[in-house]
Amino acid sequence: MQVAILAHEKFPGRAKTAVGILRYADYEVEAILDRDRSGERVSDYLSDVQDAPIVSEMDDVPDVDALVIGIAPIGGGFDESWRSDVRTALERGCDVISGLHYFLEDDDEFTRLAEENDCDIWDVRKPHDDLTVSHGVATDVDAEIVLTVGTDCSVGKMTATLELLEAAKEQGASAGFIPTGQTGIMIDGWGNPIDRVVSDFTAGAVEEMILERGDDYDYLFVEGQGSIVHPAYSAVTCGILHGSMADKLVLCHEAGKEAIHGYESFSLPSIEEYVSLYENLARPVHEAEIVAGAINTSGIEGDGSARGAVESYESELGAPATDPVRFDADEVLEAIL
Amino acid sequence: MQVAILAHEKFPGRAKTAVGILRYADYEVEAILDRDRSGERVSDYLSDVQDAPIVSEMDDVPDVDALVIGIAPIGGGFDESWRSDVRTALERGCDVISGLHYFLEDDDEFTRLAEENDCDIWDVRKPHDDLTVSHGVATDVDAEIVLTVGTDCSVGKMTATLELLEAAKEQGASAGFIPTGQTGIMIDGWGNPIDRVVSDFTAGAVEEMILERGDDYDYLFVEGQGSIVHPAYSAVTCGILHGSMADKLVLCHEAGKEAIHGYESFSLPSIEEYVSLYENLARPVHEAEIVAGAINTSGIEGDGSARGAVESYESELGAPATDPVRFDADEVLEAIL
Repeated sequence: MQVAILAHEKFPGRAKTAVGILRYADYEVEAILDRDRSGERVSDYLSDVQDAPIVSEMDDVPDVDALVIGIAPIGGGFDESWRSDVRTALERGCDVISGLHYFLEDDDEFTRLAEENDCDIWDVRKPHDDLTVSHGVATDVDAEIVLTVGTDCSVGKMTATLELLEAAKEQGASAGFIPTGQTGIMIDGWGNPIDRVVSDFTAGAVEEMILERGDDYDYLFVEGQGSIVHPAYSAVTCGILHGSMADKLVLCHEAGKEAIHGYESFSLPSIEEYVSLYENLARPVHEAEIVAGAINTSGIEGDGSARGAVESYESELGAPATDPVRFDADEVLEAIL
Repeated sequence: MQVAILAHEKFPGRAKTAVGILRYADYEVEAILDRDRSGERVSDYLSDVQDAPIVSEMDDVPDVDALVIGIAPIGGGFDESWRSDVRTALERGCDVISGLHYFLEDDDEFTRLAEENDCDIWDVRKPHDDLTVSHGVATDVDAEIVLTVGTDCSVGKMTATLELLEAAKEQGASAGFIPTGQTGIMIDGWGNPIDRVVSDFTAGAVEEMILERGDDYDYLFVEGQGSIVHPAYSAVTCGILHGSMADKLVLCHEAGKEAIHGYESFSLPSIEEYVSLYENLARPVHEAEIVAGAINTSGIEGDGSARGAVESYESELGAPATDPVRFDADEVLEAIL
């Protein structure tokens, strides 16, 4: 599928979804829309992803199947300055894929244009209507369940999950992905947006996905969310932990991080405490062990210092660790498979 | 306010909401609707609550302000055999209060009748639109926060919360209630239905209530939900624990219970393990201590044996405990206030 990605004024640093799609999705990205960087290219900023031109508006985009909204402003609203691009896309018969909290399906103009031009609006963050409570049966599937858990939000859980998945596949393992957030869902083309489901269905929405894919693979890599110590998001983390009934956990961390992002008065516990918390909380539902770690060292200059951070993380964790982007996910795969 | 409570075919054993309202709400209950027990009285079944006649339909109910749906079938749907009662209530100008998953507001006939007769439909389980994420500031309020937590669902957390609240008030303490489930919300006339909010807002929906009431009292008693080891509902439990930033926890248990209700393959951990789990999970967000226990001994015949169960629970818990219904909530109040 050929797509364009809208990332106005935010590419690449504040366009996590756009970058995730460029790096991991099977889509052919034909253009990035960023009116501040028109005329430049993706490769001017990022070396390890597919390249594409950056254009200022949808009118400059060649023929594509879909326009993806690749940024999410605080609050998840729709920025009216994007309306003409979405309108143009629909008028050209392109589908529109959005992970905003604001559902494009609820916008009368967009719905009408989609109908007139026979194209689809896919609000990735809109949970489907048949979700229900967990039945505690995720262990019934054939696959072993590997879940990424975090010391905080935004420490690289999705990235670690996808890097481990790719590495496992390259080693010939039969491995599938369970996306739980909007970027993961866009990348894989399916999934339940766990942070938007009814709270009673948090675990059930994860279980449903595992039951759907769990007999097709030997391993399922489940994208984790939030952190079990997060003042706002721990409920989602807990629901994913228990709903997935994970066998193995990979603890994701960002080097040097000391407090919860956006909640700076909350210090991070020690790595040892995270290990106990996650393992002890998992146990009554299904025994899980933290078998490996992924640490984001992008804030550290120099591979030598980064390697030092990995080694120090390994010793705190009592398990092998790596930075799966800077170094290699392979380094911890033996502990997981 | 004068109310009638619909509890067809389920009073009193399977009508938890109806019984909760009879016992704890300030409403004057003028009638119970149960077509299987018409002609009998509440006092034929329950001795410790307000008495009322049991009638077969709304036509037999004297003048009331509201009809309350006092039962919740599995799945939370609306039973069409109740339609004529709801219709009659609305035609008589009565408000209708429902905690069903199915929203009566979405029913065209009911909405039309409510409008024609100038009365209100209150879907207790419908979250309001302005919920958001927690800001981690529940400790900013003046009140000390006391939260009931459980070894399982349906062990008596709401009952313990309300009994402790009443006992505290009787001792002259300034104490308020934070309802988190449909029965608690109906009893207190306000509140967020935590199991129905968007999962990302679980903690935030609790925090919002604490900020609203927390400066008006010295103590807030927060109704807990589910259990931290429940395969389906732990997300809600975790969100309430962290969102409330509780100072003191009361662990609620049912005597003799060995497995999760409805999930019988999941054994309950030891009481000691629950204490560690709840306290260790609370700590990174806000330090909380399990200071007392409430144990439901209604399944035990004879006060002597029940007293034995309380004492054995106390020693496992390492804190004072009581059955607040059978014995007295006062017995643990000193540990809480």
